[in-house]
Amino acid sequence: MTPAPVPKAMSLREALRVAEGPVTLLGYDPASKPMSPGSKVKALAELATTGEVLASQQEMLYANGVSGDPRRVLLVLQGTDTSGKDGVVRHVVGQVGPAGVSIKSFKRPTAEEAAHHFLWRIGRALPAAGIIGVFNRSHYEDVLVPRVHGSIDADTWAERIADINAFEQQLADSGTVLIKCFLHISYSEQRKRLLARLDDPSKHWKFNPADIDERAYWSDYQSAYAAAIAATSTKSAPWHIVPSDTKWYRNWAVSQLLRDALLGLDLSYPPADFDIEAARVRLQPPF
Amino acid sequence: MTPAPVPKAMSLREALRVAEGPVTLLGYDPASKPMSPGSKVKALAELATTGEVLASQQEMLYANGVSGDPRRVLLVLQGTDTSGKDGVVRHVVGQVGPAGVSIKSFKRPTAEEAAHHFLWRIGRALPAAGIIGVFNRSHYEDVLVPRVHGSIDADTWAERIADINAFEQQLADSGTVLIKCFLHISYSEQRKRLLARLDDPSKHWKFNPADIDERAYWSDYQSAYAAAIAATSTKSAPWHIVPSDTKWYRNWAVSQLLRDALLGLDLSYPPADFDIEAARVRLQPPF
Repeated sequence: MTPAPVPKAMSLREALRVAEGPVTLLGYDPASKPMSPGSKVKALAELATTGEVLASQQEMLYANGVSGDPRRVLLVLQGTDTSGKDGVVRHVVGQVGPAGVSIKSFKRPTAEEAAHHFLWRIGRALPAAGIIGVFNRSHYEDVLVPRVHGSIDADTWAERIADINAFEQQLADSGTVLIKCFLHISYSEQRKRLLARLDDPSKHWKFNPADIDERAYWSDYQSAYAAAIAATSTKSAPWHIVPSDTKWYRNWAVSQLLRDALLGLDLSYPPADFDIEAARVRLQPPF
Repeated sequence: MTPAPVPKAMSLREALRVAEGPVTLLGYDPASKPMSPGSKVKALAELATTGEVLASQQEMLYANGVSGDPRRVLLVLQGTDTSGKDGVVRHVVGQVGPAGVSIKSFKRPTAEEAAHHFLWRIGRALPAAGIIGVFNRSHYEDVLVPRVHGSIDADTWAERIADINAFEQQLADSGTVLIKCFLHISYSEQRKRLLARLDDPSKHWKFNPADIDERAYWSDYQSAYAAAIAATSTKSAPWHIVPSDTKWYRNWAVSQLLRDALLGLDLSYPPADFDIEAARVRLQPPF
């Protein structure tokens, strides 16, 4: 009798999951490729295959949602400018049927949003049952930007962290599978990508000179990310650090994480709640 | 000097557009394939090519939206059960990046929705600037179902039609390109598709025995569609009748209509609103 094989996918999840305790991003190489399929060609092929699994699993999740199953998935994408959040949305999430996903990009809060608790706008953007929600940036912006720019004190920061943990625990308890990914790129890779945007007129609209100003705070942001990740990586809502200097690896890795989360739900199609044979008879010609 | 070629795409739009005056759906063959590329294989190849155009055109639309351009696209899908609305969303709209589209499926109104004017929930679901919105069912349900089941009188129906025309004119005036498609299938094709759902356990969740009850009203629905289409096919918001007994033709045709609408906007990327060279200098190492 042979032992059950360890699923490769489980191992990737383990490999990228943040260990408990303090986090220093310097310990994570943005150019590394843990458990990589070995080459870009192979990764793209696996991405396509995984895409079909994502689409069919999401359909099954939705079918269960229609029958009252409260479960849903929420992919939280964080990372500095050019880290590839939009790329993941397009190349990974884009493989699922568009009716099965809900994408929310969080920008600077509007006046109405800013007048509420910082989780107010987050709650309004949560995916419905059966849907894969994607947050392109998220509530984590509220413990990153203000910390870097010194606009909140340590107590307020700690309070927000506690609020986030309580909120995410509620989500998990009510059927949301959370997948939090930090897309980790290096300082020099960001330079390369910003310069590439400058070289391509079709990308100038994405470029904001203020992004160069923010780059001056690079190490502060790295520390702020590390602190937030360490303080909010819980059993119900763990963080994954996805090395993202290599785009094909990043897309492949996030697609695997998403697939594993869906397979982990052990879904099947709900049985018919009506008389199949009677329906068939009623549909005989001429009816 | 040769005359400019008539774009093939323009002609499909013309071919499927409803002529002014009374409409009888019996005059439109659901199995026909106007301007078809000739075979399923060719149609699928053209669908894939068109998908790339849709994705790049939408990105350009979005880039302009960021710079203040109010334009957006709204694809309205109507049709009886199994006519392929979900299929169009998946196979046509699914080719655009998921962040660039907004899909709204209208179900039976909630208590809150029913307590408002019937266009209230429609207004709340409109796409933002730069986005391709898709309505899977729409405000047209409110002039179809009640008419078939006799729950509104002729005056109320006429009032709703006038409301719809005024509403759609406002949308067009404020930058929304409307593409209204009626996915036209035959009575026998619907039978075939309903039976196919019964034969496939992974599709039982989509099956509702009440759909068979509604089938008894088939010709009333056809008349109600014809009346609504005739009364709301305007220059700003014309209806297209898409023969939909053949799935590959249906998907191909809607993708062409969507592509033509986007190309008709004559988009280009907005110019940079910052000093490109200064940005490049600021990004030199070590910065």
